[in-house]
Amino acid sequence: MNNNITMLLNADELIKLALREDISSEDVSTNAVMPDYQKGTVDLICKQDGVICGLYVFKRVFELLDDTAEVELYFKDGDKVKNKELVGRVTGDIRALLSGERTALNYLQRMSGIATYTNEVAQLFEGSKTKLLDTRKTTPNMRIFEKYAVKVGGGHNHRYNLSDGVLLKDNHIGAAGSVANAVKAAKDYAPFVRKIEVEVETLEMVKEAVEAGADIIMLDNMSIDMMKEAIAIIDGRAETECSGNVTKENVARLTNIGVDYISSGALTHSAPILDLSLKNLHAI
Amino acid sequence: MNNNITMLLNADELIKLALREDISSEDVSTNAVMPDYQKGTVDLICKQDGVICGLYVFKRVFELLDDTAEVELYFKDGDKVKNKELVGRVTGDIRALLSGERTALNYLQRMSGIATYTNEVAQLFEGSKTKLLDTRKTTPNMRIFEKYAVKVGGGHNHRYNLSDGVLLKDNHIGAAGSVANAVKAAKDYAPFVRKIEVEVETLEMVKEAVEAGADIIMLDNMSIDMMKEAIAIIDGRAETECSGNVTKENVARLTNIGVDYISSGALTHSAPILDLSLKNLHAI
Amino acid sequence: MNNNITMLLNADELIKLALREDISSEDVSTNAVMPDYQKGTVDLICKQDGVICGLYVFKRVFELLDDTAEVELYFKDGDKVKNKELVGRVTGDIRALLSGERTALNYLQRMSGIATYTNEVAQLFEGSKTKLLDTRKTTPNMRIFEKYAVKVGGGHNHRYNLSDGVLLKDNHIGAAGSVANAVKAAKDYAPFVRKIEVEVETLEMVKEAVEAGADIIMLDNMSIDMMKEAIAIIDGRAETECSGNVTKENVARLTNIGVDYISSGALTHSAPILDLSLKNLHAI
Amino acid sequence: MNNNITMLLNADELIKLALREDISSEDVSTNAVMPDYQKGTVDLICKQDGVICGLYVFKRVFELLDDTAEVELYFKDGDKVKNKELVGRVTGDIRALLSGERTALNYLQRMSGIATYTNEVAQLFEGSKTKLLDTRKTTPNMRIFEKYAVKVGGGHNHRYNLSDGVLLKDNHIGAAGSVANAVKAAKDYAPFVRKIEVEVETLEMVKEAVEAGADIIMLDNMSIDMMKEAIAIIDGRAETECSGNVTKENVARLTNIGVDYISSGALTHSAPILDLSLKNLHAI
Amino acid sequence: MNNNITMLLNADELIKLALREDISSEDVSTNAVMPDYQKGTVDLICKQDGVICGLYVFKRVFELLDDTAEVELYFKDGDKVKNKELVGRVTGDIRALLSGERTALNYLQRMSGIATYTNEVAQLFEGSKTKLLDTRKTTPNMRIFEKYAVKVGGGHNHRYNLSDGVLLKDNHIGAAGSVANAVKAAKDYAPFVRKIEVEVETLEMVKEAVEAGADIIMLDNMSIDMMKEAIAIIDGRAETECSGNVTKENVARLTNIGVDYISSGALTHSAPILDLSLKNLHAI
Amino acid sequence: MNNNITMLLNADELIKLALREDISSEDVSTNAVMPDYQKGTVDLICKQDGVICGLYVFKRVFELLDDTAEVELYFKDGDKVKNKELVGRVTGDIRALLSGERTALNYLQRMSGIATYTNEVAQLFEGSKTKLLDTRKTTPNMRIFEKYAVKVGGGHNHRYNLSDGVLLKDNHIGAAGSVANAVKAAKDYAPFVRKIEVEVETLEMVKEAVEAGADIIMLDNMSIDMMKEAIAIIDGRAETECSGNVTKENVARLTNIGVDYISSGALTHSAPILDLSLKNLHAI
Repeated sequence: MNNNITMLLNADELIKLALREDISSEDVSTNAVMPDYQKGTVDLICKQDGVICGLYVFKRVFELLDDTAEVELYFKDGDKVKNKELVGRVTGDIRALLSGERTALNYLQRMSGIATYTNEVAQLFEGSKTKLLDTRKTTPNMRIFEKYAVKVGGGHNHRYNLSDGVLLKDNHIGAAGSVANAVKAAKDYAPFVRKIEVEVETLEMVKEAVEAGADIIMLDNMSIDMMKEAIAIIDGRAETECSGNVTKENVARLTNIGVDYISSGALTHSAPILDLSLKNLHAI
Repeated sequence: MNNNITMLLNADELIKLALREDISSEDVSTNAVMPDYQKGTVDLICKQDGVICGLYVFKRVFELLDDTAEVELYFKDGDKVKNKELVGRVTGDIRALLSGERTALNYLQRMSGIATYTNEVAQLFEGSKTKLLDTRKTTPNMRIFEKYAVKVGGGHNHRYNLSDGVLLKDNHIGAAGSVANAVKAAKDYAPFVRKIEVEVETLEMVKEAVEAGADIIMLDNMSIDMMKEAIAIIDGRAETECSGNVTKENVARLTNIGVDYISSGALTHSAPILDLSLKNLHAI
Repeated sequence: MNNNITMLLNADELIKLALREDISSEDVSTNAVMPDYQKGTVDLICKQDGVICGLYVFKRVFELLDDTAEVELYFKDGDKVKNKELVGRVTGDIRALLSGERTALNYLQRMSGIATYTNEVAQLFEGSKTKLLDTRKTTPNMRIFEKYAVKVGGGHNHRYNLSDGVLLKDNHIGAAGSVANAVKAAKDYAPFVRKIEVEVETLEMVKEAVEAGADIIMLDNMSIDMMKEAIAIIDGRAETECSGNVTKENVARLTNIGVDYISSGALTHSAPILDLSLKNLHAI
Repeated sequence: MNNNITMLLNADELIKLALREDISSEDVSTNAVMPDYQKGTVDLICKQDGVICGLYVFKRVFELLDDTAEVELYFKDGDKVKNKELVGRVTGDIRALLSGERTALNYLQRMSGIATYTNEVAQLFEGSKTKLLDTRKTTPNMRIFEKYAVKVGGGHNHRYNLSDGVLLKDNHIGAAGSVANAVKAAKDYAPFVRKIEVEVETLEMVKEAVEAGADIIMLDNMSIDMMKEAIAIIDGRAETECSGNVTKENVARLTNIGVDYISSGALTHSAPILDLSLKNLHAI
Repeated sequence: MNNNITMLLNADELIKLALREDISSEDVSTNAVMPDYQKGTVDLICKQDGVICGLYVFKRVFELLDDTAEVELYFKDGDKVKNKELVGRVTGDIRALLSGERTALNYLQRMSGIATYTNEVAQLFEGSKTKLLDTRKTTPNMRIFEKYAVKVGGGHNHRYNLSDGVLLKDNHIGAAGSVANAVKAAKDYAPFVRKIEVEVETLEMVKEAVEAGADIIMLDNMSIDMMKEAIAIIDGRAETECSGNVTKENVARLTNIGVDYISSGALTHSAPILDLSLKNLHAI
Repeated sequence: MNNNITMLLNADELIKLALREDISSEDVSTNAVMPDYQKGTVDLICKQDGVICGLYVFKRVFELLDDTAEVELYFKDGDKVKNKELVGRVTGDIRALLSGERTALNYLQRMSGIATYTNEVAQLFEGSKTKLLDTRKTTPNMRIFEKYAVKVGGGHNHRYNLSDGVLLKDNHIGAAGSVANAVKAAKDYAPFVRKIEVEVETLEMVKEAVEAGADIIMLDNMSIDMMKEAIAIIDGRAETECSGNVTKENVARLTNIGVDYISSGALTHSAPILDLSLKNLHAI
């Protein structure tokens, strides 16, 4: 999203799909009153304080509808924006400005909402060694946009999907017979460039996982005391991740227990949007 | 979503796209430890009270991964569910149960979140003549799922997209020269089965819109007093819609002013998910 | 089709599919004799009198094959053209001119054929209050082009498809139990921006439909006398549409009975093409 | 179309595209009144005499919408059908019967129209050595269906597209420098399994083409006398094809001049549909 | 591949698919260290002697990733290249140079490998009347590239696929009842522009095929003496093709027996790649 | 490939694309002589000794063409097969057996060729601690099949693509300023589940990479002595990979120098096919 290659290869098809979702034959209202090309301009205005994210996706929507469109951006992804600030300006066929408005804002508002929410949570980690992670609890067909927004907001990315990371859960361990067997099977099967992460629920499993050579140990839904004990047992022999219902409201208690990573599904599944709108459309 | 035709024609492609987003080559963890077919079962458990929605999408995810999968559902879309209730049970290749879990839940949790939120808002309208509407502020490539969830939650749908409804905003009116011209152009251009809706901001525009023969008049960001006056002016000659930043928190003041419809983007852009999970996976 | 947005979003994919239908690997004849780029020009000549339609689709075919192609057009969609007139001129790689010729003409000839046929029928309505409508009896995967051609020829569009209009036929009414129930169900289920149309075959049904609050009543295969009686019963309380085997040959008797709309499937399913050809191709 | 392989590989995608053209989100009318599965049946009735064609495409439409649908066919492609005859019966979810009706008939009526028209023209060739051919003047994205209909109606197929046949026209010859050069270039470049066809307009070119070793010589827009002379010159050394504005009305004069093939674009671009309809839908 | 039309219509989709195979979300390594656009250049160097082929595909990879990329080519497809020679130079966003390198080389190396191998085999045919052919034993989804490479290397193309050529094998003959029946059925069914080829294994079948009017007779896995006898029997009344396990190592014995064509699957299924690499990448 | 999920989600689309590459409209030869369904069977016979791989892809081809097809397999992927052995038997519509033969074998022969070649190389590693790896030098749009074949043959997989692994080459290091900076940037940017691999060419760089905390160090094109020295320097603090022009012929010298992994592009870019064929097709 921050470079043209990702945009051309991986985002464009999704953006076009979204545009066709909104324009299955034509924009009837616009075409009824504007039969001809008319150059115009419109302002992108912020209506809430927050962290802006998705400006290139916003821009791309208009370029895909009108190859003469030009989008000026006065901020870049990750910048703090304030209510009423002018964020950018789109110039092009007024019909494209009208037809693309909703899709462009639907992306921008969601991505900025996630970046803003992530940023608020990430600030709580300042000064600690712990890093904030996202999960795979993203909206279907929005992952590439939502994971990027987490990073822009100051979070870090966990694995992208089931194909590029190994995380052995209780069922995997059960199928393999033991933690040791599961780790061995994963090391044998997975491309060797992958770290092996194991999800554990008891201190016994923590010990097994360390001994089996797991690279990362996920402490799932443990109490704070138990996590501290687990971290002591691990003693730097593996990275540690804390997981389970982490939100802006309840994360503070976790930031100083010494875990390496804390993952939060709420970053992508429950962040409200950041309100932005297009204003002052006029012909030029 | 409530019938197989919509599923086969319009939802399947999006669900497959979402599955490929999560499994770009293979589920490495699962394939590492489970090389062979093993029949298993898993329970779908509710972890919060709410309105369930998207059960057929949830079911479809597993059918698309494993044509022997069977999904029993103990509730139907629109039912109230409570924390800890057993909502359904999936039986099939354990590998499909593991590989499909996240995508199935990502759909189900979002759709149920929207149905739950919509339901809470819609209850405030009980006893009034006013109906609750959604908007086009949906997540890109999720509209067919999200609009359905609004209906399941007790809301009503506004137009599906730019192609199937006419809504003349200030820029359309400006381009046409006047409200009257815009309505006339739209009646001439749009398929005659469409109602013509006009967005107005002043009482003067309300009068013009009624006289121009608009079928629906959207009162945009007006004060409550102004809306009451507008409704009096319209006097049943057109349907009325009230719009502008309507949320669960602020809607109560609007439910008794006599407007026909109130639309709320928050239903789809800011509803948090409803928490559900798959538990007790085991071989059978 | 009359703006770039519809072209880029909704027509391009169909045009490319048609080009690949005609060029599944390469244009063998052309590549055999013209290994290298050679700039050339060719004239688009009309070979029959009629109404031209589809010029932007024609143009787009060459642009999709050759990004240096330039297409000059001396007429615009809806203009009357005469036998032997020069309609346009295409300049570009001669290989693109040869490879794109057939697909470009296949679109242009069909669209112009429909516009011409529609125009002949629409002229019979001049001076009457009645408007001419198309139907969904279009060629598969040609609807966006064919509905546009009807409008260019002077007709109006009925609903675009099953998703954007409501038309309750006898089977819908049967399933609902009565006309009143069907109308009520549709008003409740469909997005509120839709008008509700009901198809009726008897005067009794006409009365029921009016009372149920139908917005449009379709008089299906009625005699002229019966239609007049129906229109008297309706008395302006709903719009009226007359339907059933309407062709250029038999429409005249219907133009003055006072119905609001007459729909004709023949406009799109039985119009012959308008003959056009590319001539005088030469290198420049 | 007459076997499942072609259907699965090459027709299904086009049929699904056509269904999505007609159902971009859902069939609103049907879903409003029929929320639940209801088994039903409907009759396919002929409303005009003609040659039936496209029955498997008709069948496939319902199978794609409802995997429990069953379609009984009482005729096979190529059979003569008469007004009012029962052609088939579809049983399945009534909602699929309603939602698929238009798309199924749009294919069947066009294909049967082409088969009927072709059959009428082909009958004029009975007893002669001359065979009737189609052209590439087919409707975009309908070629696989339309070329099949020509064959079913008693015609023969010319090349399928630009990739699978060689036809050297005046511009190809011009580019190559001479008929001889063009034929040589094509023999060298094209896969050796292709026959080389050359389009000629003068007797001089006829001689050149024969001498150059053309396999087929297309006599383009020649007078009948000139064609006879050309055939005498060729004297069996190449196959001959007569081309140029051939329709049902004007073909008779050509059937006995001894040419091997006569090609007619009208078969696919100007055949009217054959009227068929679905009747007697009822629950069972 | 040697013109833009084939590239835009038929190769681009495959190249994009290949790029998405290699970049399913983003190029993590490159994006980690190069957040911003940086213009750079890189050299395409040959590391083995051979015949270069696929330069336009190589070029297209970079253009698809970076619309500002420029690719200078110092050779053209079919040229002999030597170890260490500079073949071309790519200039553009360094991130595109890095992200596209592997896909661009994967195409170029395979296509050049086939051209080189074909060229070595084709040289053995110099001075003989026999031409070297490819087969359909190509890599799935690489046919358009591999058949082009055969031609560039000095070979000729057999039919492109099952749809554009007729080749009657023993099973086809068995189904038809006899060689004569099979040839007759094919002439009747196939577009008349196709030559009919028959595969034969005995001299008896050779006679039948000639008498049935086959255009091409494929001598399958015959001894050299038997082939000579077959060619004598055919005596110019049909073209002849020799087939069966032909490789660079064993083809010499076949080049002078007087057969018209020799086909070799090894050209496409067993040619090793030609080694090429990108060197000297640096910012400019 | 070894489970149905990967097949349904990731392989099917590629296989269908390959089938359409070979059957762009229909199998003309087969349809000419076999107008009707005829059940038949055919044997899959090995014609060379080797390791079989791709049996499920082979099977899938026939299932996609004929949903009644049944494929019995007498071996499983990874088994050694010998010349003349019966590997499997396909039963179904004879037309599907004929139309699918080439595509099914094109996949099976290539995958078995790679498995066989990999197996020969992997045997040389027996008894050593070193593992054999593939690279991204796969055939475009064949990676999922080819990487699987490497694993079946006894090799291991390197990263799947640019998105799921981090490999910092000289240009990445140059852009970052130093090895340390590059590793730091990658650890910060990439999902934390990734190991960081650095490619080095000198012993100085080896030291820098170890100190920077690289997880894997790739020794690129080093002499054997230099590699031994590098391994001594690294001393178990990172995994080691040896890369550069490794083939069956030259790998032996590398198997005992103590490197953890050796990667070879030849496994996928230069393995010849394993010959297999379909024999004894007959009706049943």
